[in-house]
Amino acid sequence: MKSAAAIMSGLSLSTTPRPSAYLSPATTLSSHRCLRFFSLSLPIYRSLNFTKRPPIHVNHSNPMLIIRNSSSSSSGSYSITAKPSSEMHKNQNGNSRGMEQDQKLIALREQFGKPGINIDAYIIPSQDAHQSEFIAECYMRRAYISGFTGSAGTAIVTRHKAALWTDGRYFLQAEKQLSSSWTLMRAGNWGVPNTTEWLNDVLAPGGRIGIDPFLFSSDAVNELKEAVAKSSHELVYLYDVNLVDEVWKEARPMPPNEPIRVHDHKYAGVDVSTKLSNLRSELTDAGSSAIVISMLDEIAWLLNLRGNDVPHSPVFYAYLIVEIDAAKLFVDNSKVTPEVMDYLKKAGIELRSYESILSEIESLAARGAHLWLDTTSVNAAIASTYAIACNKFTENLGSKSKGKDFATRGSNRLSSAPCALCKSSPVSLAKAVKNHAELEGMRNSHLRDAAALAQFWSWLEEAVNKNVILTEVEVADKLLEFRSSQVGFVDTSFDTISGSGANGAIIHYRAEPDSCSIVDAHKLFLLDSGAQYLDGTTDVTRTVHFGEPSERQKECFTRVLQGHIALDQAVFPENTPGFVLDAFARSSLWKVGLDYRHGTGHGVGAALNVHEGPQSISFRFGNMTPMLKGMIVSNEPGYYEDHAFGIRIENLLFVKEIDTPNHFGGITYIGFEKLTFVPIQTKLVDLSLLSAAEIDWLNDYHSQVWEKVSSLVDGSAREWLWNNTRPVAKP
Amino acid sequence: MKSAAAIMSGLSLSTTPRPSAYLSPATTLSSHRCLRFFSLSLPIYRSLNFTKRPPIHVNHSNPMLIIRNSSSSSSGSYSITAKPSSEMHKNQNGNSRGMEQDQKLIALREQFGKPGINIDAYIIPSQDAHQSEFIAECYMRRAYISGFTGSAGTAIVTRHKAALWTDGRYFLQAEKQLSSSWTLMRAGNWGVPNTTEWLNDVLAPGGRIGIDPFLFSSDAVNELKEAVAKSSHELVYLYDVNLVDEVWKEARPMPPNEPIRVHDHKYAGVDVSTKLSNLRSELTDAGSSAIVISMLDEIAWLLNLRGNDVPHSPVFYAYLIVEIDAAKLFVDNSKVTPEVMDYLKKAGIELRSYESILSEIESLAARGAHLWLDTTSVNAAIASTYAIACNKFTENLGSKSKGKDFATRGSNRLSSAPCALCKSSPVSLAKAVKNHAELEGMRNSHLRDAAALAQFWSWLEEAVNKNVILTEVEVADKLLEFRSSQVGFVDTSFDTISGSGANGAIIHYRAEPDSCSIVDAHKLFLLDSGAQYLDGTTDVTRTVHFGEPSERQKECFTRVLQGHIALDQAVFPENTPGFVLDAFARSSLWKVGLDYRHGTGHGVGAALNVHEGPQSISFRFGNMTPMLKGMIVSNEPGYYEDHAFGIRIENLLFVKEIDTPNHFGGITYIGFEKLTFVPIQTKLVDLSLLSAAEIDWLNDYHSQVWEKVSSLVDGSAREWLWNNTRPVAKP
Repeated sequence: MKSAAAIMSGLSLSTTPRPSAYLSPATTLSSHRCLRFFSLSLPIYRSLNFTKRPPIHVNHSNPMLIIRNSSSSSSGSYSITAKPSSEMHKNQNGNSRGMEQDQKLIALREQFGKPGINIDAYIIPSQDAHQSEFIAECYMRRAYISGFTGSAGTAIVTRHKAALWTDGRYFLQAEKQLSSSWTLMRAGNWGVPNTTEWLNDVLAPGGRIGIDPFLFSSDAVNELKEAVAKSSHELVYLYDVNLVDEVWKEARPMPPNEPIRVHDHKYAGVDVSTKLSNLRSELTDAGSSAIVISMLDEIAWLLNLRGNDVPHSPVFYAYLIVEIDAAKLFVDNSKVTPEVMDYLKKAGIELRSYESILSEIESLAARGAHLWLDTTSVNAAIASTYAIACNKFTENLGSKSKGKDFATRGSNRLSSAPCALCKSSPVSLAKAVKNHAELEGMRNSHLRDAAALAQFWSWLEEAVNKNVILTEVEVADKLLEFRSSQVGFVDTSFDTISGSGANGAIIHYRAEPDSCSIVDAHKLFLLDSGAQYLDGTTDVTRTVHFGEPSERQKECFTRVLQGHIALDQAVFPENTPGFVLDAFARSSLWKVGLDYRHGTGHGVGAALNVHEGPQSISFRFGNMTPMLKGMIVSNEPGYYEDHAFGIRIENLLFVKEIDTPNHFGGITYIGFEKLTFVPIQTKLVDLSLLSAAEIDWLNDYHSQVWEKVSSLVDGSAREWLWNNTRPVAKP
Repeated sequence: MKSAAAIMSGLSLSTTPRPSAYLSPATTLSSHRCLRFFSLSLPIYRSLNFTKRPPIHVNHSNPMLIIRNSSSSSSGSYSITAKPSSEMHKNQNGNSRGMEQDQKLIALREQFGKPGINIDAYIIPSQDAHQSEFIAECYMRRAYISGFTGSAGTAIVTRHKAALWTDGRYFLQAEKQLSSSWTLMRAGNWGVPNTTEWLNDVLAPGGRIGIDPFLFSSDAVNELKEAVAKSSHELVYLYDVNLVDEVWKEARPMPPNEPIRVHDHKYAGVDVSTKLSNLRSELTDAGSSAIVISMLDEIAWLLNLRGNDVPHSPVFYAYLIVEIDAAKLFVDNSKVTPEVMDYLKKAGIELRSYESILSEIESLAARGAHLWLDTTSVNAAIASTYAIACNKFTENLGSKSKGKDFATRGSNRLSSAPCALCKSSPVSLAKAVKNHAELEGMRNSHLRDAAALAQFWSWLEEAVNKNVILTEVEVADKLLEFRSSQVGFVDTSFDTISGSGANGAIIHYRAEPDSCSIVDAHKLFLLDSGAQYLDGTTDVTRTVHFGEPSERQKECFTRVLQGHIALDQAVFPENTPGFVLDAFARSSLWKVGLDYRHGTGHGVGAALNVHEGPQSISFRFGNMTPMLKGMIVSNEPGYYEDHAFGIRIENLLFVKEIDTPNHFGGITYIGFEKLTFVPIQTKLVDLSLLSAAEIDWLNDYHSQVWEKVSSLVDGSAREWLWNNTRPVAKP
């Protein structure tokens, strides 16, 4: 046990408790800003051995960063060291695919010795240059080189080895997809080293480890650098070439090239000049002269623009630099329609090519600009280019302080030499607090979404009752059809999770046409889905039973519902961090020894990313972001019984002031208002467990659902809505 | 605003949010281990301005450390800079006392220039050498020199100035007690510098600041040193002389000299050899060869000894050094009875004089001992003596690494040179987890305490009904009388808080014979009291009304009760940190915009200190100590309406395993069992606000109270108990 713990202690972001909680390698290396919300995890205090370990350190800047639990997929395997997938599982893809993968590895290694490269290992993360949750195909380099297509993973190729780290969600998939040239590293299992521990183990000391610095956040690279320095390895930044792209060549898809559109002012609520002016005030207050924004949703929000470069998120690939008296958008010109061109010109925003970002950074440093960099999201290429250019500036001044004072974390810098302020992007919090128009758009789009869902559930119930055989994928497709016909529909906001029976217990389940189950009338069915509309973004989960649920299922559903109600009804002092509220959603489950391995709530963008920070409601105690009026969060407690069923009830809520009769401490008390209006199946509720107040909540909710949605549907959907919003009473 | 914030940012333990929360100067300088639990404070998130400030850093090692709020005593005075008390308030004590104080200051300053001293300022904290909550009179040096007798405060005397820092609880008292030679520093008010900011301001750069290194924890001194180094001041450790004692001379009381007694095995449960053996295993695991224990309750617990040196806590002044093959108790020989002498001898514990602690530390270092030091509690005299001796050792070895590696925080040290492991004392957590005998003792003593309280309340109710005029002090004295007649009674466990009407809203109220109120039949009466028995320690608060409470009072009381019930009934995964539970106790108050400015629960010793760590239930999120089976905590939500009334309902609970039907995650779920059995006045409950489950809780509790306590009382007390444990029903 001791040796395993010693190995794990090298993880970069936390001293992890065991056996329940680990960081996945993806999070270790890349600081995902919006990891899929439902990363498997258990509250970190589960196995916190206080006497032996220091308190957990949490990544404050990344509230969605989740510690995962491996027990569901690998219980009892704590002492297993990762073995090559070839040993664990006969490669089902046969020789041809394996050979293809081997050819890629050979081609990749051929790059290692080239002049100007000369490396011993190359790290291929999952990320794009913007830490996006959803990325364009041309940036899926890790999937291309390894053959493993799961959303989370890190590949490392040395001259003689190739290894891929992924977490418990993807062990089976990776075993199938990796050729025998690859070693699968089951992250989170006992004895499995993390990426840097492995590198330190397999490389001779003093090795050169290549990375594409665009694909790592500045913070992630610093952690990486520190970790490999233990074996005297050097991190080699390959700015000009991505070695996987060199292998991929012509087969590599073109970067996305979809036209950008202006986000209508009636949905945006605040015009770009006001937003820029507010941002510039923050820059001035902080003593910065410019900020580099690289998060795609921050750029889209700030400029009131939307794009279509990646699935599910209405964003476009770009960087944005805002100076006190200028703003430059770095974007592929071909995406910019004449309308957008005109719009940007009026807003005083200059266009630059996407590729010219680094030369602009150099130029800013040369002009002595103090740059505000959110190093949790800005990539290492930008940060290090700025650092090097600052050093040059200082050298030219003849000063002796070379680079060491490149960055400050305070706000008062007296020197005239350029230096960075490393601080969370102010756009993140500004974006999270919705204005009136954004809230209106969210309200309206949620009603249309509710209408589509009423049509869908009415259709599905009827089909199942008629014994129509439908697969999980067909059902999700039909839902898309209903949503598509709603005004303003753009896209789904994430891949629909459509899980019947045991599949509902797989928190990250994604039904695939060739392998999915049918929707079984005798099992629980969990459906987590959402849409992008022109005016808003939705995310809703309902769990239903088409036949007779068991008492066990009813009790579990009821306790999840009680948690959902407790959070929905919570009132709390303004500025309370979200994690204070998390226990409200778990309390009723805890009373009978149940729990769920994911957070309770994430932020949601307004016609933007379905997962956004900085706020969250989670058992991770590190995110001190206060809950503020206007924020939107999901409320989604659940319960998952392995190999049996899954339950989740999810509404979106927005934070609003509560008109309390008192204001102790002279402050405002805040709470939530619902955005989602979709019936909760009362058949699954054990009314004897509910208090009078909880029954009132349920009846009141359903009365609101009928009142708000009934006029938007007709026929059988309206009938279904009527039937499913009738009040219940204690037996 | 900016300058005030800049000044405050110098506070040593946290970047404090404003305007609600500050560190009191006492906490800044001294790291009190057990500050009075009810330090005024508001949840820190109240004014947390996330965009402008980094996350709060919390002192992990000191869970009781409370940030305080000044609004109740100084609302509207945020911009006031402290003024001499002479300007604020005419000194009521007249000239004679002022002159006496001035004489003391003159005598103290005369010491400054003496050979071997030569200082420009002297800091006089409130502490003894053991960071005790209650201290012996001879160690009340700050009170002696300044005349201010409040429990918290720090005095600093320079050649020309004298200043005293205290917090809002004591502003009025300090104004009365300080002579015009002193400047009162109202800590927490805007514009008031903390101690080190003030020193840096008033002393010319390069000043010499004297301290008695026994009176500061090692950590506190390091913070202090760093803070004054900004103005190039030097901290001068005066090991051999306390300058206040030099002034005090013969008038100084003798150090306490009460006999030590053996804590009966039937109450201790585990014998000293087993405890020492467990501790030695921890030392070995950590690679340490010895530990210095300076917390008096840790020594008493570890050795199964009790003393009587300070009020309220059954401890005795001593240090303890446990080595792998030896143990030495540093204590005044005259306290050691022949019985104890014999007991210690059998346990293999050698006796040393209290004063010889430093020479033993030197000797340990000379022998190459690796010392485990809890630098949050071990005083700077010990820590620095060891550091200096380690350096000497290294010099003698001819090594060049002088002192820089004196301390490690890891556990693996390969060097043979002595070095310190700076880590929380393992005794703290071991002591917090009660064994069966300790729990039995706590249970039994709580029943006898409940009997005394039934007699008391019965007596008081009758007296008030007969219009007997009783003061708050008389009532507290009568309670002591009832308790004193219980078997095994030793002492009160803290100064009784007996507050009628508005006095109940003063969280730290201490009734004084010459100024206290009468117990008013028409007002709420809050009584927070506890006792030390041979077998256990109690702490209980009840709030009652002898007449007709107002609707407002009933609503507030009922919401406090709902919070109390919610925490009492909570079930949660083992290892959950206490702060996760805090919101349960506030939720019902929050719903109507109410709250309270103190934590919800503190640890309690078994026949030991009424306040002990490391666990707590608080809105302070830094204390990650997991809740463990066997721990004891208080459950004491409250509500305080300034100038009107105070409500608090406090039981002690112990943590136990709950037999849940499920064990999700393969873990144990834990909850609480009550130790306190004293009726809660149902007259104050608005039953219409309670749920059916809450009414059941109340009736069930009262039925237990009757069942457990009725046989211990008779006559009118039994009748009172019967009347006050009758079930209630929803109207």
